[in-house]
Amino acid sequence: MREPDSLRSTVDVAAACADVIERVRAHSPRVHCITNAVAQNFTANVLLAAGARPSMTISPEEVGSFVAGADALLVNLGTFDAARREATDTAVEVAAEEGLPWVLDPVLIDRSRPRAAYAADLVTRGPRALRLNRAEFSVLAGAEPEGEALRRYALDALTVVGLTGETDVVTDGARVAAIRNGHPLMARVTAIGCVASALVAACLAVEGDAWLATAAALLALGVAGEGAGAHARGPGSFAIEIIDALDRLDRDLLVARAKVQ
Amino acid sequence: MREPDSLRSTVDVAAACADVIERVRAHSPRVHCITNAVAQNFTANVLLAAGARPSMTISPEEVGSFVAGADALLVNLGTFDAARREATDTAVEVAAEEGLPWVLDPVLIDRSRPRAAYAADLVTRGPRALRLNRAEFSVLAGAEPEGEALRRYALDALTVVGLTGETDVVTDGARVAAIRNGHPLMARVTAIGCVASALVAACLAVEGDAWLATAAALLALGVAGEGAGAHARGPGSFAIEIIDALDRLDRDLLVARAKVQ
Amino acid sequence: MREPDSLRSTVDVAAACADVIERVRAHSPRVHCITNAVAQNFTANVLLAAGARPSMTISPEEVGSFVAGADALLVNLGTFDAARREATDTAVEVAAEEGLPWVLDPVLIDRSRPRAAYAADLVTRGPRALRLNRAEFSVLAGAEPEGEALRRYALDALTVVGLTGETDVVTDGARVAAIRNGHPLMARVTAIGCVASALVAACLAVEGDAWLATAAALLALGVAGEGAGAHARGPGSFAIEIIDALDRLDRDLLVARAKVQ
Repeated sequence: MREPDSLRSTVDVAAACADVIERVRAHSPRVHCITNAVAQNFTANVLLAAGARPSMTISPEEVGSFVAGADALLVNLGTFDAARREATDTAVEVAAEEGLPWVLDPVLIDRSRPRAAYAADLVTRGPRALRLNRAEFSVLAGAEPEGEALRRYALDALTVVGLTGETDVVTDGARVAAIRNGHPLMARVTAIGCVASALVAACLAVEGDAWLATAAALLALGVAGEGAGAHARGPGSFAIEIIDALDRLDRDLLVARAKVQ
Repeated sequence: MREPDSLRSTVDVAAACADVIERVRAHSPRVHCITNAVAQNFTANVLLAAGARPSMTISPEEVGSFVAGADALLVNLGTFDAARREATDTAVEVAAEEGLPWVLDPVLIDRSRPRAAYAADLVTRGPRALRLNRAEFSVLAGAEPEGEALRRYALDALTVVGLTGETDVVTDGARVAAIRNGHPLMARVTAIGCVASALVAACLAVEGDAWLATAAALLALGVAGEGAGAHARGPGSFAIEIIDALDRLDRDLLVARAKVQ
Repeated sequence: MREPDSLRSTVDVAAACADVIERVRAHSPRVHCITNAVAQNFTANVLLAAGARPSMTISPEEVGSFVAGADALLVNLGTFDAARREATDTAVEVAAEEGLPWVLDPVLIDRSRPRAAYAADLVTRGPRALRLNRAEFSVLAGAEPEGEALRRYALDALTVVGLTGETDVVTDGARVAAIRNGHPLMARVTAIGCVASALVAACLAVEGDAWLATAAALLALGVAGEGAGAHARGPGSFAIEIIDALDRLDRDLLVARAKVQ
């Protein structure tokens, strides 16, 4: 017998993740992205490859209408200027009014205190998920990114933590998924974390369980990364191949390759 | 007997388009681009592949001197902030003074009213061509993008309409070209419309007949897209292959592959 | 017998350059880049391929802390707006305080007088190296970019001149290296000069002799360009292949292929 709302085995989680990825393709959600200039083109192409429809304006005058017409929002702090902060404030406010899910990517907050303070403030404004690396988590949570601290932070902040690294860990405080897919070249391509966060937003648009949406996005990117790694001749071609691999990714491949616990 | 200024058959139009593309390579026109951050790198590489010389600054202090030294101007509204509007105002003014042709790309005006209003105002300032999709045309013209409405809009606005989609339609109100080249992956790569508009600008730099220049640009991109589609393994590699295909594109290939009416 | 600090033969220079490139991989220096939006993604991926760790923020509020935590700084004038000038002023000041080496890339100063004036001012603030093309040198130095003028300018400005073109010339006024590596497609890809400057910054981070660091960066890019040219089918794939080639570049290949005098 199986309880509702509980996913017990790798196969269950992988199959549920595959459902989410299929729904992204079926519904083509609009994902508005406030992200940095380094990541914008790559992010747009990754979202298109996954079946979503990206928009990218950061103009304070019109970001509100773009967010109001979107199905999910990405807030990436990779560029942190006054105009983007103003756009972010408006975007998050509109997302709250519209009940739109959003994900926060606190890029490089370990390198800048004002950015870290701004990220901490944003966490209080209701992101459904955070996607970050170990150094960024440590700054935000004031704790090492280990199992218990991750769970406690997710519970305290009422959000899902999607920690990426050699193994990705996704937790909402109650459930924990460890994803062992991926490829070493993912650490050699700029903005891979940023596109992971954008995929989380796309999945949040079609899946109300933010833990599952976050796991689906990170699993899909990890499996696509493995496919890309099989064809790439270095980090340049890897960044192209991972877009092609996401485009090809289907349910069977995702379930067959998933290393989720 | 053949009237001057009239192109009667597919072969005539395709050959005239091939002339324009050859002149871009021969004269290497300078094309100044006010465009969005998502599109900038791709646009610069597409222009270089076609033989043009791009510049991209949007700084209000110096955009005037870049435009004055250029052979054509692209105004793309994909990012719509105060600084870009100021740069656009200066650029369009300098283009008018210098008699420089320019093309307007009213990106996503169906998503933002202030952007649509700004685009409508820009149309009154004399772009030689508009490059847009169906949703954008509908907002700008207040009419469905069908044959008669396209012609009437071009006549009223004294410009050329280059409508892209499965079939591209180019009209100056009197003449209509329908271009059936292209590849489905063109809809899966970000900023393809933006680079189409940049190619229109490059062709306007070497061809005074804006209808022919616009048709040449869209035909070249469509044929390059077919070549790219033959090699691509997905949308990531397609975006690379289309640059390579534009670089290789020559008169014989363009005329042989053209599906223009 | 061999004098210290003097490199007499092609083999000596190439071997010394290879040492620098190996040190970049071994130490993974942090390189903060104030660069233009066209170049940002390509620059970040090139630095990662060479083994460095890029950061790119241009926000005036935090650029100081990023520079203080970096090992070298790139100042690229390809976008020249008020915010980037403010960020540059702060970054150069912090670099001076911290003794951090920095490189100036005066992009397109031949197209804009205010940009040229700003570049001339920056030269007085102590860049260890300039990376520029012939037109840019002519504007900055008020002289043709020939051997004697290059040497005199380097001596007067107390910097290293890294002039790129068909043959790259690197001089500190005393020593001159001519590098004949490279590939014609390097002139057909946007931002190749910008990434060359970023590699100079990465090499300055690990090599106190700015002449040698600049030569190492330009040699590595030239040899990688030759490798890329062997696989590329056009400028689109070339831009990808050069990243892969930089990633594969090792000491033996660099020394075997070097054409340095």
